[in-house]
Amino acid sequence: MARNPERRTALLDAAIEVLADEGARGLTFRAVDARAGVPTGTSSNYFSDRDQLLSQAADRIFVRLAPEPGALDAALPPTSGRELVVELMRRLARRMTAERTCYLGLFELRLEAARRPELQKRFTEVLRTDLGLNIRLHLDSGMPGDADTVRLLYVALTGLLLDHFTVPGLHGDRDLDDLIETVVTRIVPEA
Amino acid sequence: MARNPERRTALLDAAIEVLADEGARGLTFRAVDARAGVPTGTSSNYFSDRDQLLSQAADRIFVRLAPEPGALDAALPPTSGRELVVELMRRLARRMTAERTCYLGLFELRLEAARRPELQKRFTEVLRTDLGLNIRLHLDSGMPGDADTVRLLYVALTGLLLDHFTVPGLHGDRDLDDLIETVVTRIVPEA
Repeated sequence: MARNPERRTALLDAAIEVLADEGARGLTFRAVDARAGVPTGTSSNYFSDRDQLLSQAADRIFVRLAPEPGALDAALPPTSGRELVVELMRRLARRMTAERTCYLGLFELRLEAARRPELQKRFTEVLRTDLGLNIRLHLDSGMPGDADTVRLLYVALTGLLLDHFTVPGLHGDRDLDDLIETVVTRIVPEA
Repeated sequence: MARNPERRTALLDAAIEVLADEGARGLTFRAVDARAGVPTGTSSNYFSDRDQLLSQAADRIFVRLAPEPGALDAALPPTSGRELVVELMRRLARRMTAERTCYLGLFELRLEAARRPELQKRFTEVLRTDLGLNIRLHLDSGMPGDADTVRLLYVALTGLLLDHFTVPGLHGDRDLDDLIETVVTRIVPEA
């Protein structure tokens, strides 16, 4: 296996672009090499098989979608309660929108996970950990609501982002910020 | 173009199976012929090109996922308000789960719609009409809540079903019926 970490990361980022553009089925070593602009055969020196390429692409997506350290705390408006939840959810949605390719790649891999038990196991672990962390942060910071409040916000945001990326006109002139405010107002109890 | 309607429907059902198993990228005339067990070249007599195959497969998915006439009214328990909404949402989710292949095919096509403006336009129309109909039925039948209540139920159910099909262990021992009850209780106001 080749060991150049920058090259590996560049190949994984190319793999994410292939996922978003072609779907999981289009993710081949040859397609990754072409997208990364490297000689055919390069990827196969970095990944032992397609399963490994898929699972490392998934890991790379989670790294890219994770908030930058301190990003959520930075320059928060002096609000609390529901208003703070609206602001945090909007920031999260903006991040996902900025990383459109990554987020579409994540959806593609989730559908692939429906067909591949190993990938499903990995996704379940990562997403459970992430949801659990969000629940703990919400409760620890004293924001209103309980664990199911956060679970519902997570589920609703997944649905909203899927609509936003695949059928953006579905909710008419309601933009994502507006829809997020509605979701939070309806799901999060008053402080 | 060949005109046998049963044969066309059988080819579209085979196309939906290919979509669910292989993703949109795997949907070729050859794959559909193989899945349907018909001679290679058959599909290309029924569909002028791949775009037409995709859009007719989408239409067929919506037909299969639509409730049977009267199904939603049949044998409803003598409840009203929130409890009735819970029951209707659970029936809808059971229908989607029974039509797992169709629903996974729909997700695959939604991701394909992110790449294909024509398909996106068609999906936006169909889903908007469907959501609008759900809002009207909810309001006309006097169930509690307003248009945004129904919009949120729709968004949350999309997120829940995506989790259920792709990472069923994400919500631990909370099954779909339980999660739906939680969603409805939090989103639908008391009557």
